Amino acid sequence: MIPPIATESELQSLIGKATVLMEALPYIQRFRGETVVIKYGGHAMIDPELKRMVMQDIVLMEHVGINPIIVHGGGPEITALMDRMGLEAQFIDGQRVTDAATLDVAEMVLNGKLNGEIVQGINGFGGRAVGLSGKDGNLIVARKLQTNPDRDMGYVGEVEAVNPEVIRILEKADFIPVISPIGVSPEGQTYNINADTVAADLAGALKARKLVLLTDVRGICRDADDPATLISRIREGDIDGLIEQKIVRGGMIPKVRACRAALRAGVGMAHILDGRLPHSLLIELFTDKGVGSMIMP
Amino acid sequence: MIPPIATESELQSLIGKATVLMEALPYIQRFRGETVVIKYGGHAMIDPELKRMVMQDIVLMEHVGINPIIVHGGGPEITALMDRMGLEAQFIDGQRVTDAATLDVAEMVLNGKLNGEIVQGINGFGGRAVGLSGKDGNLIVARKLQTNPDRDMGYVGEVEAVNPEVIRILEKADFIPVISPIGVSPEGQTYNINADTVAADLAGALKARKLVLLTDVRGICRDADDPATLISRIREGDIDGLIEQKIVRGGMIPKVRACRAALRAGVGMAHILDGRLPHSLLIELFTDKGVGSMIMP
Amino acid sequence: MIPPIATESELQSLIGKATVLMEALPYIQRFRGETVVIKYGGHAMIDPELKRMVMQDIVLMEHVGINPIIVHGGGPEITALMDRMGLEAQFIDGQRVTDAATLDVAEMVLNGKLNGEIVQGINGFGGRAVGLSGKDGNLIVARKLQTNPDRDMGYVGEVEAVNPEVIRILEKADFIPVISPIGVSPEGQTYNINADTVAADLAGALKARKLVLLTDVRGICRDADDPATLISRIREGDIDGLIEQKIVRGGMIPKVRACRAALRAGVGMAHILDGRLPHSLLIELFTDKGVGSMIMP
Amino acid sequence: MIPPIATESELQSLIGKATVLMEALPYIQRFRGETVVIKYGGHAMIDPELKRMVMQDIVLMEHVGINPIIVHGGGPEITALMDRMGLEAQFIDGQRVTDAATLDVAEMVLNGKLNGEIVQGINGFGGRAVGLSGKDGNLIVARKLQTNPDRDMGYVGEVEAVNPEVIRILEKADFIPVISPIGVSPEGQTYNINADTVAADLAGALKARKLVLLTDVRGICRDADDPATLISRIREGDIDGLIEQKIVRGGMIPKVRACRAALRAGVGMAHILDGRLPHSLLIELFTDKGVGSMIMP
Amino acid sequence: MIPPIATESELQSLIGKATVLMEALPYIQRFRGETVVIKYGGHAMIDPELKRMVMQDIVLMEHVGINPIIVHGGGPEITALMDRMGLEAQFIDGQRVTDAATLDVAEMVLNGKLNGEIVQGINGFGGRAVGLSGKDGNLIVARKLQTNPDRDMGYVGEVEAVNPEVIRILEKADFIPVISPIGVSPEGQTYNINADTVAADLAGALKARKLVLLTDVRGICRDADDPATLISRIREGDIDGLIEQKIVRGGMIPKVRACRAALRAGVGMAHILDGRLPHSLLIELFTDKGVGSMIMP
Amino acid sequence: MIPPIATESELQSLIGKATVLMEALPYIQRFRGETVVIKYGGHAMIDPELKRMVMQDIVLMEHVGINPIIVHGGGPEITALMDRMGLEAQFIDGQRVTDAATLDVAEMVLNGKLNGEIVQGINGFGGRAVGLSGKDGNLIVARKLQTNPDRDMGYVGEVEAVNPEVIRILEKADFIPVISPIGVSPEGQTYNINADTVAADLAGALKARKLVLLTDVRGICRDADDPATLISRIREGDIDGLIEQKIVRGGMIPKVRACRAALRAGVGMAHILDGRLPHSLLIELFTDKGVGSMIMP
Repeated sequence: MIPPIATESELQSLIGKATVLMEALPYIQRFRGETVVIKYGGHAMIDPELKRMVMQDIVLMEHVGINPIIVHGGGPEITALMDRMGLEAQFIDGQRVTDAATLDVAEMVLNGKLNGEIVQGINGFGGRAVGLSGKDGNLIVARKLQTNPDRDMGYVGEVEAVNPEVIRILEKADFIPVISPIGVSPEGQTYNINADTVAADLAGALKARKLVLLTDVRGICRDADDPATLISRIREGDIDGLIEQKIVRGGMIPKVRACRAALRAGVGMAHILDGRLPHSLLIELFTDKGVGSMIMP
Repeated sequence: MIPPIATESELQSLIGKATVLMEALPYIQRFRGETVVIKYGGHAMIDPELKRMVMQDIVLMEHVGINPIIVHGGGPEITALMDRMGLEAQFIDGQRVTDAATLDVAEMVLNGKLNGEIVQGINGFGGRAVGLSGKDGNLIVARKLQTNPDRDMGYVGEVEAVNPEVIRILEKADFIPVISPIGVSPEGQTYNINADTVAADLAGALKARKLVLLTDVRGICRDADDPATLISRIREGDIDGLIEQKIVRGGMIPKVRACRAALRAGVGMAHILDGRLPHSLLIELFTDKGVGSMIMP
Repeated sequence: MIPPIATESELQSLIGKATVLMEALPYIQRFRGETVVIKYGGHAMIDPELKRMVMQDIVLMEHVGINPIIVHGGGPEITALMDRMGLEAQFIDGQRVTDAATLDVAEMVLNGKLNGEIVQGINGFGGRAVGLSGKDGNLIVARKLQTNPDRDMGYVGEVEAVNPEVIRILEKADFIPVISPIGVSPEGQTYNINADTVAADLAGALKARKLVLLTDVRGICRDADDPATLISRIREGDIDGLIEQKIVRGGMIPKVRACRAALRAGVGMAHILDGRLPHSLLIELFTDKGVGSMIMP
Repeated sequence: MIPPIATESELQSLIGKATVLMEALPYIQRFRGETVVIKYGGHAMIDPELKRMVMQDIVLMEHVGINPIIVHGGGPEITALMDRMGLEAQFIDGQRVTDAATLDVAEMVLNGKLNGEIVQGINGFGGRAVGLSGKDGNLIVARKLQTNPDRDMGYVGEVEAVNPEVIRILEKADFIPVISPIGVSPEGQTYNINADTVAADLAGALKARKLVLLTDVRGICRDADDPATLISRIREGDIDGLIEQKIVRGGMIPKVRACRAALRAGVGMAHILDGRLPHSLLIELFTDKGVGSMIMP
Repeated sequence: MIPPIATESELQSLIGKATVLMEALPYIQRFRGETVVIKYGGHAMIDPELKRMVMQDIVLMEHVGINPIIVHGGGPEITALMDRMGLEAQFIDGQRVTDAATLDVAEMVLNGKLNGEIVQGINGFGGRAVGLSGKDGNLIVARKLQTNPDRDMGYVGEVEAVNPEVIRILEKADFIPVISPIGVSPEGQTYNINADTVAADLAGALKARKLVLLTDVRGICRDADDPATLISRIREGDIDGLIEQKIVRGGMIPKVRACRAALRAGVGMAHILDGRLPHSLLIELFTDKGVGSMIMP
Repeated sequence: MIPPIATESELQSLIGKATVLMEALPYIQRFRGETVVIKYGGHAMIDPELKRMVMQDIVLMEHVGINPIIVHGGGPEITALMDRMGLEAQFIDGQRVTDAATLDVAEMVLNGKLNGEIVQGINGFGGRAVGLSGKDGNLIVARKLQTNPDRDMGYVGEVEAVNPEVIRILEKADFIPVISPIGVSPEGQTYNINADTVAADLAGALKARKLVLLTDVRGICRDADDPATLISRIREGDIDGLIEQKIVRGGMIPKVRACRAALRAGVGMAHILDGRLPHSLLIELFTDKGVGSMIMP
């Protein structure tokens, strides 16, 4: 209870820490009152240490007046439970076909396991998170994903409309919404949707200041094997060129396209960050160093 | 689009229907602005027709100005998924022991399956439901259930405290909260809690006007096999006598005790209703006929 | 006080009633939060049983979230009091000339008798009505009715402007405004105005969802003597044709024109209903049967 | 449109007028935000010049931040209309017996004639008055006046309860409520009530700062024929003595008792003013000269 | 404490005063809820009697619902303190050069002496004033005055932008802002600004109804020596002509130009009043006599 | 504009900084929404580097949800200006006698120089400060300081009452109030008050969580010359003993007594901090190291 008296050398260290806090000041001012939608996934959702740091970053963001909105995925855990239940995953061209049983498993894992863990993680650091799926307050109206008619992916959906009222109400009361990428069609059919897409569409509907995708790569690199070739800044209009040049390829393509959709819907800036980097969210927001690729309108 | 012209006999039928609507008027006035906590479970959660009717009842209640709060259980579905996953349920004295794996299954079924189904059901009739577990906004702070020290039930909890702010905020914005009986301890341990208890403790914390437990029996009957022996009204003080006389026995005992706890915490009235009866909620609220047992302070 | 236990047959009847309540659900949803202006007059204002039912309909509308606004006339009662006071009514072409004495009588009957009776009727069923004349809060600014210069109708007015603030404030606090068709000119001269016109002009000023005129006929019928020839739906643009064909004629002409004015001012739909039909308001709003003529933009 | 240039002598006169305005400053500050209930009646309601000045006084009061509430009577006009209608007034011990026909006439005169005239008078000077009777929003719940059982006064009532919500809502929106002394019993029976009593009971229910009764006498005078014997200040506790000494007598007794009831219900001060004196309301409020009798708690 | 009873002759005088109050009624109504920006300076800020009257005028304005905003200058007091401190004032073409020491003195006199005196003066008459400089809440963003490059006037500034939020917040809570003409550049340099200009720019930013400049002349006169040649009304478009004709000349030119700037920014009307005339503010606002020159858009 | 890509070693440094930010999290949570009154004076007000750091600390506090209120003194600057103006300071027992001329100088320095500098300093780091003296909105009602009657200190005052409304309104709109220790008596006499006392009385009136006095010593030390003898925590009840033992002595006595007064008025905790220590405010609030003396209730 009695605070120990700081020694001279402790004092120097404390003053150094205070100086660090001060460096954050201009960044806090820049983003106060703004909404930042964060797609949370990959290693940062698996490694317990990284997980803890993302939760802290989110709570600190909220405490300095930013409105963070979390959208999470859940790939590997879904497969794990399917295995446990003896369900076999089917794939077409590398994409999972979602039949009714798979959809059930996806919902249970997303809403019944991962969402609650994130909520609890944030609350454990003093935040006030509330978990939502796209069903809650009709948040995400979905439709069957429009794809090549030859490939029926089953209950894989895309966002048709967003009803952001439930988010607005929670945000206003200083709650942090944590959202699983499940939507419902007007006819009542549930769909599993790609989490990057949901994050981008929500960011657009909320006119967010930023969309941040936490990934397992350093960003968009000219040479995927060399982080030193990271492209720290691209314009939305350059995306097609980068895809043609195969600099953006594979799983990065839908991510970059989600960013583009968000920017076109009025989001201020999109970021592809490396979730494996400790506190990458905070570093991106609160320092002038770029730690990923920023996509600008 | 063009409304068909009513024939004379149709008109008579329409006038009859309007008369029925009017009979509800004094009951609507009595409960406007009041909170009613409903424990939803049993057959009414399994039979699709009954399910549909409960959803409608809830939506109509909200539309006429009542604030319904739904708490749901999930017993049989949890066992079913455990079976699918090759987990064996352990029981002590007929109560399920909840180890870590069982707790995981319970959360997945409650939050990832049943909660979403209820939310979707209500929304399908034009309501605006939002699903919550006790983790959301720290709604339900739990602790390990205090029981006979010889019997360790594992992660079975009881309510230590309720933080109703997230409910208040949703209610005020005309959303209908649907709550699964999962709580978290201050140390971050998740607990599965009996849904009747959660409903009673929430009703107490919210100073609800009514607590309604939907069950699979007619109410408290002098002779369990004869619905004609239903006791339509008892005082809280009579409960111990009824237990001693074995009129209240078995699974009815915790339900009746939950009702008593709610009344002592300031709830106006508790009802044990027969969820197998179509529209039993509406009939209890909007007519002067008693269709179950009412427990008064 | 003890609710009687329902017998099996009573239960069946109760379930039937609950089913009727449910049929109203989609209609309640359609009109929640909307304003409906009702011109109340004719038999429905004279027959005590019909009167009672209109009051109930209005209270139920308010309870399910609709904002009803009542405008009433008062023809026969004015004549009755004039007789009692030995005043002789003068008519030109069937229209009453309103001299100063007649105007005094009209105000006394409208504001001092009929308005209070309606307010009290609504309050008797648990509503919260507040009576207003066009003088209150300068609600209705009037001018002398522009007519054939040869026929001086005296203090018969028309609406020049509406100051709806007093209505908005009462509505927001869940009061039901009941309005008599009296207006005042900027110079302070009181005018008696046709109640259909006042209802239409108020509906327009309030951008009401619906204007409903309660009349003593079935609606617009091709053959006035045969209700089976009711025209259930017409477009605003068809009105002139119907007048030319003499299908709309006599006292129906000003009513239809009031509806047209309201639609042109932005009201969603106008209805000419038969006030002699029990609960015709409720049937029109809460069922998919048309019981009168609907005039669409 | 072009303001004429003031001459030197006009300037002196204008400066004098500004000085008068300034004298009101401390009084305005004393009563800002306070409620003042005014019983309006007697000569001030008959003489057109006095009428105009009362209306102005009320409007100015509202403009400087006071909340005036007007309660009016209507004696002579009721008798006049009864005469016109051939109804004979019956009296017991000088008090009018109110049968059903008389009650009808009273309502028509009070609500249909006088109330509207006052509303219009206030609005004519730029105020925003709204007329109410005790029926509106159930403002005045009445019961039969408890009197000597031998004398049945018919539908003469007294105030049982006040529901001030409609007044509060109008006040808050800067409307001036004008109230006729008509109440309704819970069973729906209308009663005519003494206006002084209604004003006193309203003032008590609203915890008004002041109750002002406008009368046709100078105040309470030791010698009724000599205004110089005016008692400018009495304590509530002195009232019984003044009645015993017959200084307060006749029609002044119920007025003084109404004042006492208001003071006991928490009203700050009661005034009996001479309504025949031009601007007596303003002079009492805005100068340090007493122009009537002030009754203090 | 006991109000003295008014004598008959006192009564006549009181009635006369009430009549004067009433004459203000229509003017109060015209300006309720409007913002009036007043440049306070000259004799009215020096003569104790005139000072007292300006304070009263401002308080009364606020009490009847007008929002007065005061901007004050401080010329002679600044020179006096410079003399005390042995600083020599430098002038170029009659304009004071403001070096760093002069700026310090100006701030101390304006914010540390005059502003507080005005605040205290207003509060002494029951108003609730709050003093502000352009630094508070970044109210006035300034830049160096753009002038002839040959003449460096030092830290004399002009208004670059207005951040009116602090004023809006104080106004809404019924505080009266009193503002000194000090601004700060985005780089943090303080500037002394002409008070007429600040008043005009604030009035424009606030879309005030009126800008009033209190001066030491009668207004714009055709013959400066003859008040009878006062031009009571000019249009903004006539200003250049009046300057060309040398009717507007000398120190009046910047005042008239400030008025023009305000009108062009949306202010309703500008007035050049004679602050030496007692209660000139009140007379201008609350009577139909013009006591200065009014400049119209 | 293009954020430079961080090198590996920069990344490590950034992660280290983020970790420091995270350490502040629990402290931010503890003080969110709380009011902290800070007496600003001494070296921290003179040394430009320390000044800058105090401004930053205050802005960061506000950004993380704390409500800082600044009260400043001004001793040396007042003497400096008096010297410039040829005024001689008079002292009795080491305390300055404040005659009218001295009071004038004090106001000019406090309100016209120092207050504005602090406001500007805070605004320069992105805060939104508003300067106030005790005159603004009658914030500080003062009376002559009650002292030994032999020693007339002139216009030295003490706080009689606090009207915190203007502070509450500014705080709510996220402005930071900066207050000079000038008060006014009800009769209009200005008084200069000790700034520690004003801070303590304001903290008490606002029921602040903390009162912080920035001083030029390390805190309360058993041996004033040895910072290692700092007493980090004392109870309010121990103060008299420490004074008797001369551990608290000289200028520390009134500071400690001001702290006691604040605690007795309901303030949670008082701190005597060393303003010469960089970021001492932040270190005290946001770390668990004590850097001064804490006085507890």
